[in-house]
Amino acid sequence: MVKTRRSKKSGSPPGTLVHIGEERTDRVRITLLRYSESEVREEELEDLEHLGQISPTLGEEGVSWMNIEGVHHLETIEKMGKCYGIHPLTLEDIVNTEQRPKIEEYEDYLFVVLKAFDYADQDSELIMGQISLILKPKMVISFVEKSGATYNALKDRIRAGKGKIRKEGSDYLAYCLMDVTVDHYFNILEELGEGIELLQEELIANPTKTTLQQIHKMKRQMILFRRSVWPLRETVGSLLRGESGAIHKSTLVYLRDVYDHLIHVIDSVEIYRDMLAGMMDLYLSSLSNRMNEIMKVLTVIATIFMPLTFIAGVYGMNFKYMPELEWHWGYPTVLVLMAAVTVYMLFYFSRKKWI
Amino acid sequence: MVKTRRSKKSGSPPGTLVHIGEERTDRVRITLLRYSESEVREEELEDLEHLGQISPTLGEEGVSWMNIEGVHHLETIEKMGKCYGIHPLTLEDIVNTEQRPKIEEYEDYLFVVLKAFDYADQDSELIMGQISLILKPKMVISFVEKSGATYNALKDRIRAGKGKIRKEGSDYLAYCLMDVTVDHYFNILEELGEGIELLQEELIANPTKTTLQQIHKMKRQMILFRRSVWPLRETVGSLLRGESGAIHKSTLVYLRDVYDHLIHVIDSVEIYRDMLAGMMDLYLSSLSNRMNEIMKVLTVIATIFMPLTFIAGVYGMNFKYMPELEWHWGYPTVLVLMAAVTVYMLFYFSRKKWI
Amino acid sequence: MVKTRRSKKSGSPPGTLVHIGEERTDRVRITLLRYSESEVREEELEDLEHLGQISPTLGEEGVSWMNIEGVHHLETIEKMGKCYGIHPLTLEDIVNTEQRPKIEEYEDYLFVVLKAFDYADQDSELIMGQISLILKPKMVISFVEKSGATYNALKDRIRAGKGKIRKEGSDYLAYCLMDVTVDHYFNILEELGEGIELLQEELIANPTKTTLQQIHKMKRQMILFRRSVWPLRETVGSLLRGESGAIHKSTLVYLRDVYDHLIHVIDSVEIYRDMLAGMMDLYLSSLSNRMNEIMKVLTVIATIFMPLTFIAGVYGMNFKYMPELEWHWGYPTVLVLMAAVTVYMLFYFSRKKWI
Amino acid sequence: MVKTRRSKKSGSPPGTLVHIGEERTDRVRITLLRYSESEVREEELEDLEHLGQISPTLGEEGVSWMNIEGVHHLETIEKMGKCYGIHPLTLEDIVNTEQRPKIEEYEDYLFVVLKAFDYADQDSELIMGQISLILKPKMVISFVEKSGATYNALKDRIRAGKGKIRKEGSDYLAYCLMDVTVDHYFNILEELGEGIELLQEELIANPTKTTLQQIHKMKRQMILFRRSVWPLRETVGSLLRGESGAIHKSTLVYLRDVYDHLIHVIDSVEIYRDMLAGMMDLYLSSLSNRMNEIMKVLTVIATIFMPLTFIAGVYGMNFKYMPELEWHWGYPTVLVLMAAVTVYMLFYFSRKKWI
Amino acid sequence: MVKTRRSKKSGSPPGTLVHIGEERTDRVRITLLRYSESEVREEELEDLEHLGQISPTLGEEGVSWMNIEGVHHLETIEKMGKCYGIHPLTLEDIVNTEQRPKIEEYEDYLFVVLKAFDYADQDSELIMGQISLILKPKMVISFVEKSGATYNALKDRIRAGKGKIRKEGSDYLAYCLMDVTVDHYFNILEELGEGIELLQEELIANPTKTTLQQIHKMKRQMILFRRSVWPLRETVGSLLRGESGAIHKSTLVYLRDVYDHLIHVIDSVEIYRDMLAGMMDLYLSSLSNRMNEIMKVLTVIATIFMPLTFIAGVYGMNFKYMPELEWHWGYPTVLVLMAAVTVYMLFYFSRKKWI
Repeated sequence: MVKTRRSKKSGSPPGTLVHIGEERTDRVRITLLRYSESEVREEELEDLEHLGQISPTLGEEGVSWMNIEGVHHLETIEKMGKCYGIHPLTLEDIVNTEQRPKIEEYEDYLFVVLKAFDYADQDSELIMGQISLILKPKMVISFVEKSGATYNALKDRIRAGKGKIRKEGSDYLAYCLMDVTVDHYFNILEELGEGIELLQEELIANPTKTTLQQIHKMKRQMILFRRSVWPLRETVGSLLRGESGAIHKSTLVYLRDVYDHLIHVIDSVEIYRDMLAGMMDLYLSSLSNRMNEIMKVLTVIATIFMPLTFIAGVYGMNFKYMPELEWHWGYPTVLVLMAAVTVYMLFYFSRKKWI
Repeated sequence: MVKTRRSKKSGSPPGTLVHIGEERTDRVRITLLRYSESEVREEELEDLEHLGQISPTLGEEGVSWMNIEGVHHLETIEKMGKCYGIHPLTLEDIVNTEQRPKIEEYEDYLFVVLKAFDYADQDSELIMGQISLILKPKMVISFVEKSGATYNALKDRIRAGKGKIRKEGSDYLAYCLMDVTVDHYFNILEELGEGIELLQEELIANPTKTTLQQIHKMKRQMILFRRSVWPLRETVGSLLRGESGAIHKSTLVYLRDVYDHLIHVIDSVEIYRDMLAGMMDLYLSSLSNRMNEIMKVLTVIATIFMPLTFIAGVYGMNFKYMPELEWHWGYPTVLVLMAAVTVYMLFYFSRKKWI
Repeated sequence: MVKTRRSKKSGSPPGTLVHIGEERTDRVRITLLRYSESEVREEELEDLEHLGQISPTLGEEGVSWMNIEGVHHLETIEKMGKCYGIHPLTLEDIVNTEQRPKIEEYEDYLFVVLKAFDYADQDSELIMGQISLILKPKMVISFVEKSGATYNALKDRIRAGKGKIRKEGSDYLAYCLMDVTVDHYFNILEELGEGIELLQEELIANPTKTTLQQIHKMKRQMILFRRSVWPLRETVGSLLRGESGAIHKSTLVYLRDVYDHLIHVIDSVEIYRDMLAGMMDLYLSSLSNRMNEIMKVLTVIATIFMPLTFIAGVYGMNFKYMPELEWHWGYPTVLVLMAAVTVYMLFYFSRKKWI
Repeated sequence: MVKTRRSKKSGSPPGTLVHIGEERTDRVRITLLRYSESEVREEELEDLEHLGQISPTLGEEGVSWMNIEGVHHLETIEKMGKCYGIHPLTLEDIVNTEQRPKIEEYEDYLFVVLKAFDYADQDSELIMGQISLILKPKMVISFVEKSGATYNALKDRIRAGKGKIRKEGSDYLAYCLMDVTVDHYFNILEELGEGIELLQEELIANPTKTTLQQIHKMKRQMILFRRSVWPLRETVGSLLRGESGAIHKSTLVYLRDVYDHLIHVIDSVEIYRDMLAGMMDLYLSSLSNRMNEIMKVLTVIATIFMPLTFIAGVYGMNFKYMPELEWHWGYPTVLVLMAAVTVYMLFYFSRKKWI
Repeated sequence: MVKTRRSKKSGSPPGTLVHIGEERTDRVRITLLRYSESEVREEELEDLEHLGQISPTLGEEGVSWMNIEGVHHLETIEKMGKCYGIHPLTLEDIVNTEQRPKIEEYEDYLFVVLKAFDYADQDSELIMGQISLILKPKMVISFVEKSGATYNALKDRIRAGKGKIRKEGSDYLAYCLMDVTVDHYFNILEELGEGIELLQEELIANPTKTTLQQIHKMKRQMILFRRSVWPLRETVGSLLRGESGAIHKSTLVYLRDVYDHLIHVIDSVEIYRDMLAGMMDLYLSSLSNRMNEIMKVLTVIATIFMPLTFIAGVYGMNFKYMPELEWHWGYPTVLVLMAAVTVYMLFYFSRKKWI
């Protein structure tokens, strides 16, 4: 479940790029979106040779957003790094997709790592992808481990000029990217919540061994999710405290909104965890309850039939002188006696509420 | 139980108003209560067109309180926002009824979110409503998600001029609104406490599967309640530390009282949680105890009748040469033997305190 | 167990006096003890009309201690408040006996709330009473919810002039009151400790359902006790940090002693809690142990008699051609076989250490 | 286990000396060891009358160490206090042997309380004694509750002039006393560790009820031990932060060593606690396992013999027309049938791995 | 498992060298690697006599790394200490291999203790070795308790001049040593992760008593591992805060990388601990489940055969007048009755999903 860095050989010098994560071979897609208040220009870069010749912004006030989908092609990452002056350790973190969400301030850029989540449709497995942001004064470079349609709505907003995005700087764009990612967490929360509700119904109706294993699977997903959200909260919190000059004051109020969302997500995850712990208790006590039920059946049966069998056994003895055996009403009398014992036992158990 | 934001589409620009919460269609009721030390004027606003023309206060020293019941009508909220210069993010938080209690300072107002609780009469379900307060120098705007009679007593106090409320500023009014809401928490505590006591009696008298589920339901209510009170404490605490200039020093001593109440509520909730955890233990051990009882019955019955049945079986054998069978007193002797075995067993069990 | 404020109607203005606690009707007893280094004067006040005319101190250097036993008579409290300039919120806290221990600084006095504990003799129920202290430069006013002999030794010390109490100011008197109250906590600790030891012996000798309920009762008492001591520690700690000017430096060293005692009490309570948790474990494992015992008896009996009964059953069959039945030594042989089976089984069980 | 102050009557003035702890009557032994770099003088004081006339140090640079073994003789303590200007509250703490480890700074001395531990040989009971140190510029006074040979090695070091002890001041001597006491904790750790290992072996080989009680006894010892080490760590930590001027900078580096040892001890105690908790789990699951074993035996026996007995019962019926009874091979056929049932059952259980 | 210092006698003066750890007798190997940007010189020191005559660095800018494998030869350590001015307490810590990871600043060097981990191949036992680093302005001395090939890759890097190591100072070399050690933790994590996965599969397929003991063994390894990583994180964190002047600013960014790795390791260990705790739950509930299975078999068998045996018993009675016995179809009728009872019981149990 928790993949550790397999391939990295201890002893290699720091800054050596080693892709850690799922192996992939598909093409890396690079899009460059440049916009100013009046203009938007969008292009897909096929060839990184002429990267240095592209003017990063349109006019003096513009902002450019370079989005790289796929971090498994080390050469591309290295070229980007050289062209935009990114520190080797940053590049190492970008290609290692098992980073913890964090924020690091370098001399001329801010480096943010966060996690995007999605559900694999077929088996309700939680998929985690890493998103790395590099925020420079007039540019945002985003590295997305797993491509998805997540940022399409944001692109549409830029194209249409909706909201204030085209009037603001690169820090607002970085905020938007974080906001979109965090907003998507609520979908994950919903899925988790629904899964928990289904489990709870199953638990009350008919708990089986599978239920228990599903509780555990859910718990693990929760831990994985929480582990990514928790440090992000700290990260955004440190940004909020204004410790970094890369974020303008007017953007801080929006970041506070992201922070609130993260706290909301964490709160919900904690509540889900409590509920899962409670379900574990319910499961265990349902096992005990069921055992009690089984034992009651056994005890009722044994308590009724043992005396009856004993009575039958007595009159099955072969003693020469057993007067009852000779009586004409002996057999019916014994049958009535047996019925009486049975009725008494049933009465006793129904008073004990066992039947 | 924990509703996540269903309708919000990720990617929409921040400040987009989306109502999150129970769907409702009833009319939003807006009342404006303006008062100074000498005068009180109260009106219900039907039409928001002329909102801008109403002078917010009576005379120079007055305070006005605008109370909006219902936050599901987005147009109303938007109009209020435009008229009184409320930030779009604040409006977004007001219509999203799943906010965490919090306090946010904006340039010209203080924004407070808190939660009101009530019990649905029919099924003892805990109902949570959101209350948002906007505190401006001479005005308080309160948005109440679910209308109730909660603020009637406060209105009466203003009308009657009881206490010092008409002599104080808008911050004292905001305090009163918070005080009334928090005082109502004690009623919820009482209900919870009574519910717990009932459960405890049921647990000792006759614990069933339903008892367990009720313990869990109660636990969830407690978590929900606690989750709203806990951050409110922090919020009021930060107000107390005088970090905000919106609260006068003379009002701080009253806020300290609210703070004390919140700590009292949290203390009690913690104790209830401990008690519920203890009840869980009691339930599980009562299951084990009952199992022991069942097993004792089974064991006593089996231990008495198995030897008896065996003896009867022996004299039911068809060997040709079994001298006992021929004896005249054979049958009575065996009966006496059986009685002796039974008496011995009963004595053994009563010494073990099983019967 | 945890009584919440029943009578207070939400919406009443702050500072409204409402007595919360046990209803009582007995007379409130007010004693005034004035002393200086050379003189002691003691009187019981019957009539509060002339309160304002009594000079609070004897000479310039004296200290006066007014002790009010009973806080249920609201008029008395109100009169005291008016006469000595006590804030309405303070009065509200004095009559609400469910306050948390706390310390609050007002402009011209220090307000301290703490809890006194006692054991009801007949049913070992823990009784909690509230003590409120108002410390003014030359005066201490103490409000004691439940009258007791607790302060008699202190009064004797003042009368006799033992120790340095008559040479010190009102802050030293306040310290003495707190010291006496906290010292009494050790008696409660002793009682709790003895109760736990008794329970432990019972648990090892003969645990019953009552034992479990007593463990839970003890747990609740512990929580109640701890809940009162814990915040008091913080309170005294904040006094120690010298944040309040009402305490002289020479008294601080004595307060540190009170602080040490409180930490000692909290430590012991934590240890008792651990011990109670361990006793819960012991109880549950004793249930399992007992179940094992019961099952062993059942299994031993069943395992011995089932084969025997089967053998008897075989020779009870009515087949025409069963050669064994005709043998002369058939019956004794079968009896010997049965004895052999029994001996083998007993040997098997004794090797398994079941019998 | 946790003794609370029995004898102290609430209400006695602070500074009243009351010995709290085990009652003892043996003589208090006082030794005075004075040394400078060149000289060592050692004497046992029989008579405290002339205490004031003994020059505390040898020459200008010397250090004197007064060691008092036994704190139950209140007169001695009082005389010491008067002669060396010790505060009454300090004296009260010295004779109350239930102090928490702590450090208190007085005007002209530093007061340190710590705990010494030892094992009673016969019943592996942990014995705790209190050591109080008073550190003055040129003198250390140590009060040892229970006499032992603990400090002999240190005295030898002083006599022999080994190490740098004779070149350093009184703070170094105080450090040495603390170091010796803390180093002895490692012996206790070893004993505890060995006890745990023994228990663990017993738990795997043959867990009994006694094992459980021993786990609990060990747990209590651990709590007692930890409770004394934990606050000592804080105490030494606050010394390290240089808050007290009584310790020279050159001694601080040695105190850091003591601090490290204390953290090591605490770490180990935490690990032991985890291990004991794990052993509790092991014990409970071994109970469940054993129950499963017992039930398997019962089930196997019942499942084999019930069908057999039933078959025998069928052919024991007395119907007139039962053709099988007349068959010549009827009896052997039934025996074969019974054998087949038995073999099938045994096969079934061995496939289920029950036998 | 946790070895405490056996041999140290309390009372010996501080700075006395006592080797604590596994006893070893093999030769201590000392290598000296001196390098500057242009040159590398490597030698193995056989004789420490002439140590003082070896110039520690090559030229003015060079760095030298002295690596000592084995800390059990006290004379060697003492010689090193004298030659390079190492404080006796540092030496004491180096030879005591049960130090906690820590960092200590001395006047002219920085002392770092960390732990290296490895797996013993044969029995998957976790082996811990201590590494002590002494960082001086132009020199790093490393003491490695257990020799291994761990640092070979680093030596190769120095020899080949790969990366920037030959251009940087001694602090960068110290960073590299820490980085290599910490990177190796990921291998341990992988091994632990695989072990957990194996256990989990075993737990679902066929849990036995051994599984439980392996869970506990794993837990202990986890505690041991965590105990070494956790304080290292604090240590590196304090270095990062720039509290020590021994680390250059350019190296700090690399140390931040080590810090990230440590947090990653701690995160994973916490997740593994959660998983192990969950496995404990799974094991206990599998015990309960199995008990339920056993009891179901017993109950089904008893419930079917007890009524049948009773019926057979009834017709085995020897009453003279039992009309059924005379019927021609009596026997078949009873057989059909028995079959009906059996079918009904089977139907009942299959409806209850017991079979």
